[in-house]
Amino acid sequence: MNTIGHIFRLTTFGESHGTAIGGIIDGCPSQLKLDFDFIDSELLRRKTAQSSTASQRKETDQIEWLSGLLDGVTLGTPIAFMVRNEDCKPEDYEALKDVYRPSHADFTYEQKYGLRDWRGGGRASARTTLPIVVAGAVAKQVLKEKGIQILAKVTDMGDAEKARREGDTVGGIVECRITGVPAGLGEPMFGKFSAELAHAMFSLPAVKGFEVGDGFALAGMKGSEANDTFINKDGKITTATNHSGGIQGGITNGNDVVFRVAFKPIPSIAQPQQTVNRAGETCQIAIEGRHDVCALPRAVVLVEALAAMVTVDMGMMAGR
Amino acid sequence: MNTIGHIFRLTTFGESHGTAIGGIIDGCPSQLKLDFDFIDSELLRRKTAQSSTASQRKETDQIEWLSGLLDGVTLGTPIAFMVRNEDCKPEDYEALKDVYRPSHADFTYEQKYGLRDWRGGGRASARTTLPIVVAGAVAKQVLKEKGIQILAKVTDMGDAEKARREGDTVGGIVECRITGVPAGLGEPMFGKFSAELAHAMFSLPAVKGFEVGDGFALAGMKGSEANDTFINKDGKITTATNHSGGIQGGITNGNDVVFRVAFKPIPSIAQPQQTVNRAGETCQIAIEGRHDVCALPRAVVLVEALAAMVTVDMGMMAGR
Amino acid sequence: MNTIGHIFRLTTFGESHGTAIGGIIDGCPSQLKLDFDFIDSELLRRKTAQSSTASQRKETDQIEWLSGLLDGVTLGTPIAFMVRNEDCKPEDYEALKDVYRPSHADFTYEQKYGLRDWRGGGRASARTTLPIVVAGAVAKQVLKEKGIQILAKVTDMGDAEKARREGDTVGGIVECRITGVPAGLGEPMFGKFSAELAHAMFSLPAVKGFEVGDGFALAGMKGSEANDTFINKDGKITTATNHSGGIQGGITNGNDVVFRVAFKPIPSIAQPQQTVNRAGETCQIAIEGRHDVCALPRAVVLVEALAAMVTVDMGMMAGR
Amino acid sequence: MNTIGHIFRLTTFGESHGTAIGGIIDGCPSQLKLDFDFIDSELLRRKTAQSSTASQRKETDQIEWLSGLLDGVTLGTPIAFMVRNEDCKPEDYEALKDVYRPSHADFTYEQKYGLRDWRGGGRASARTTLPIVVAGAVAKQVLKEKGIQILAKVTDMGDAEKARREGDTVGGIVECRITGVPAGLGEPMFGKFSAELAHAMFSLPAVKGFEVGDGFALAGMKGSEANDTFINKDGKITTATNHSGGIQGGITNGNDVVFRVAFKPIPSIAQPQQTVNRAGETCQIAIEGRHDVCALPRAVVLVEALAAMVTVDMGMMAGR
Repeated sequence: MNTIGHIFRLTTFGESHGTAIGGIIDGCPSQLKLDFDFIDSELLRRKTAQSSTASQRKETDQIEWLSGLLDGVTLGTPIAFMVRNEDCKPEDYEALKDVYRPSHADFTYEQKYGLRDWRGGGRASARTTLPIVVAGAVAKQVLKEKGIQILAKVTDMGDAEKARREGDTVGGIVECRITGVPAGLGEPMFGKFSAELAHAMFSLPAVKGFEVGDGFALAGMKGSEANDTFINKDGKITTATNHSGGIQGGITNGNDVVFRVAFKPIPSIAQPQQTVNRAGETCQIAIEGRHDVCALPRAVVLVEALAAMVTVDMGMMAGR
Repeated sequence: MNTIGHIFRLTTFGESHGTAIGGIIDGCPSQLKLDFDFIDSELLRRKTAQSSTASQRKETDQIEWLSGLLDGVTLGTPIAFMVRNEDCKPEDYEALKDVYRPSHADFTYEQKYGLRDWRGGGRASARTTLPIVVAGAVAKQVLKEKGIQILAKVTDMGDAEKARREGDTVGGIVECRITGVPAGLGEPMFGKFSAELAHAMFSLPAVKGFEVGDGFALAGMKGSEANDTFINKDGKITTATNHSGGIQGGITNGNDVVFRVAFKPIPSIAQPQQTVNRAGETCQIAIEGRHDVCALPRAVVLVEALAAMVTVDMGMMAGR
Repeated sequence: MNTIGHIFRLTTFGESHGTAIGGIIDGCPSQLKLDFDFIDSELLRRKTAQSSTASQRKETDQIEWLSGLLDGVTLGTPIAFMVRNEDCKPEDYEALKDVYRPSHADFTYEQKYGLRDWRGGGRASARTTLPIVVAGAVAKQVLKEKGIQILAKVTDMGDAEKARREGDTVGGIVECRITGVPAGLGEPMFGKFSAELAHAMFSLPAVKGFEVGDGFALAGMKGSEANDTFINKDGKITTATNHSGGIQGGITNGNDVVFRVAFKPIPSIAQPQQTVNRAGETCQIAIEGRHDVCALPRAVVLVEALAAMVTVDMGMMAGR
Repeated sequence: MNTIGHIFRLTTFGESHGTAIGGIIDGCPSQLKLDFDFIDSELLRRKTAQSSTASQRKETDQIEWLSGLLDGVTLGTPIAFMVRNEDCKPEDYEALKDVYRPSHADFTYEQKYGLRDWRGGGRASARTTLPIVVAGAVAKQVLKEKGIQILAKVTDMGDAEKARREGDTVGGIVECRITGVPAGLGEPMFGKFSAELAHAMFSLPAVKGFEVGDGFALAGMKGSEANDTFINKDGKITTATNHSGGIQGGITNGNDVVFRVAFKPIPSIAQPQQTVNRAGETCQIAIEGRHDVCALPRAVVLVEALAAMVTVDMGMMAGR
């Protein structure tokens, strides 16, 4: 269950302070000349995004491409890649080794596996999303040839600089728009385009909400307000409004696919907190380490990446 | 892609006005004595739910069990079942055969498949969710033996009776709570408990939003407000609050799993609407047929059913 | 695990003496006009095949189509079908209820599930292969449009009439040839065309061996004898010989795909046999019921059906 | 389709002369202390096996473990590993860049992907099976704790030393036995234990035949000869003979699982051969490079590895 996708598939590996993190992209079309500069720039978006709101961990994040390429062209075989973990400071976490940080995955991982990699959050660290950016960048290249574009942005975010001063963190919302997507993508029953997007977005750490089109606001509308009237625009059938977010009956209708993702605040706060340790004893913690104040800026490229992967995959499922 | 689940799996079939609708439950534990009265009562919840807000289509909805049982006890082999479609009135839809109803799946199905079953919405009809109720009722029995309960309710809904008079429809929100779920369910990367729930809920018609715990509200909170402090309660580690909705790092923490699902208003409204037909010509329609004013009452048991199926499946994935 | 295929998928259900057997075909292309006469004739091949060597159970085997069709044309949605079980004589099996018939699945089913449907072999009955014939017939229609043909025949079989007189049964070998298959089908590592065929054929009851091309004979050859020289035949690259059976590196090379399937003799013999019962007591049994002397004649259409399904599915996986 | 397994899954990557080969093991139980010496010894079995019959490529085959471990103990998260490719001599293959070697995958890969990595066979090289040995060694450790052992051996092989002198190659047969496997593993319809084994074995290069128990010989037997009588042996129900190879109705019966795998001779022979090039022109080739005379010795550990992986996976599927 570390794999996402049906035909265009990504399997990821890695813990925050392990040897490396990376992934295998399986099902990528052959004969695609990878634009490594673009891939690096996507990683850079993730990195510079962190400048003011994010942790100070230094990672060069140099991708090593392990397979699937000949002279930079995809062979159709699995594309494996990895990034070594550097600047690891497990000692920052040693004090928290036996403590369950509030709203972190420490407790749940131990319940599931009987042990956990306590160094920097292990597999649950946000660092493990890096392979998603790489696979998303490859997917975007596949989409570019089809004229499909994906653009996300932060639409809501707490006051990060104030939170930093207070030893606190903030959450926010990312909105994403897929333009140029053809009508007819998505499976009608259990692989709806919206369901696949929802599944993908909830794979990101800290995601607690997802909505398509007008989303939760639609729950308060009347049908006469919410319906998207079909119109003939220059010989092409489309809708006058887009309350549906480009998806009807689970299938894209050719309009922009629009969705929003809600991120909770990062649980690693500098303020002292009460919690319990493995022995069940109450204790106080103050999380030091190096942590983001807000996940939102770096989440933008992650949301785009997963949206790109889902769109490529659903396109392949539909034979397009 | 008409299958949901990894080990406990449901594959459904059927169109609104075809011969029958039904499904195959694969992966159900053997030696379970099915409580057919309970299953019928779940179907009845769906039916009586419709009394005031729903369509007047009369269906006896008599389940015919086709396989997988010996004297009412599960064999471990696939449990197939079906319900015949009765009281079909395709003539109600004949006028809409070549017209794309606003915010319906008519247009998208044609884009995807090149044709569609225009009788009563075909595969996109809400009627096709009936097999989910059946599979969910079976899943609930599996959970009952483990002390897990699932309870959903409508928390927000427009004024249905007013809408009916105005030839309009309303949407709303269903909240669901899973109690007794053990800690440790859910896969950490791409099969998070929350992601599986999101995927399942977006499989229901008209769903446009999904959130876990405090959901979208968390986007506006600070970390110090959103974090769930761990406490030792009578020797058991739990959390003092449940902003996380029972899921941390994608894995259940033993607290109640709580989530909310937003449904848009049903798009079939009696008011005249403008749209286009297959030829791209603008036309006026007034949807007659027999339609719900609100999907919410019947959605409650559907939300519970899918939640039950996901919980059973994730439990099996975790070997519990 | 009652599903076969990746995109073109069949999920089957049913026990020999249950209410019905059938299946759901998911992923069939839309807009295909089903040739029901052809499908019936395929079922008839299975039936008449039985005339001299097979059991006398009378089944009209009337297919009831439940979904996925509009005026006989595929909608792209799941095609469900079933055949009711008739002429059931569970009393024939009552005496064997607590006995483990040699080389049958009685014992293994009980070990797996804790119980079994003892009536006519339950899920392990050869009758449960009927849905495969139906799905195979649909797959053949898909292939026909692409100019791909599948033809199997019995190449080896014991002396059936002698065996019948002696209260015994015989096994044999079915050879199958797929012509017109394009080069490039099959996944190179874990979804080789040969591996998918092998998996499919071993899904049939009584199959104990499978080989592609010259198969086991290749183990005794030298490379210089086994290699298939490439030649240019009228501008098309092909091979002069076909020891490889049309598959190299797991991928079709455009030549005929040729494979052979070994079936063991049916274990239900009229001769008295020693075995043990559920209590572990030694006992004598003489299987009466109505049983085939040889599975081979009816296996021919089954081998073809699965070969057709695999070919359609691998074609879809390759986007062809 | 570079993934094998349902719960215990291996995804592999790599080409013969690319940067590295490796894989990700997903679904391995947590809290298993890996025996790295054993894993290395398994790789050594593969290497020393080559001494007399195999190619002279020098590879240190040093495994680098990338994730999923803490102090050598499995975390339950994906275990990624890789081996760098060394001693690559692409120039050995440069002359064959545009030529389709007989019975190799050159032609089929180009048909499938439009290009191929011509250096050392690329993805189709036997070198790409190395990750299978690693994953198999991990699976064997899982089985060891359950008392399950797997042992394969070469039972038939051509005269390798004679073939080497003649610039030829030979094939052969590997027989494998799984002891201690509990009754009840395997899914009854499309995931039979035998079908899963067949699929796995046909994933190995050069495999052209597979049989379980007496296999093809059963096709010539009578039921009275082929049936395995159940007996009570010291209070445990087992069979007096094992013609079935431990599998009945697709499910293990507790007896040894026995199967045989036929390998064709390696197609890279030193003798001159006629073939065609990409332009369709007839040409002569003499394959130099460094090639095995026989794949059999190194195939033994591969057959064991895949058998171990299938057994672990089927055990997990059965919840055991």
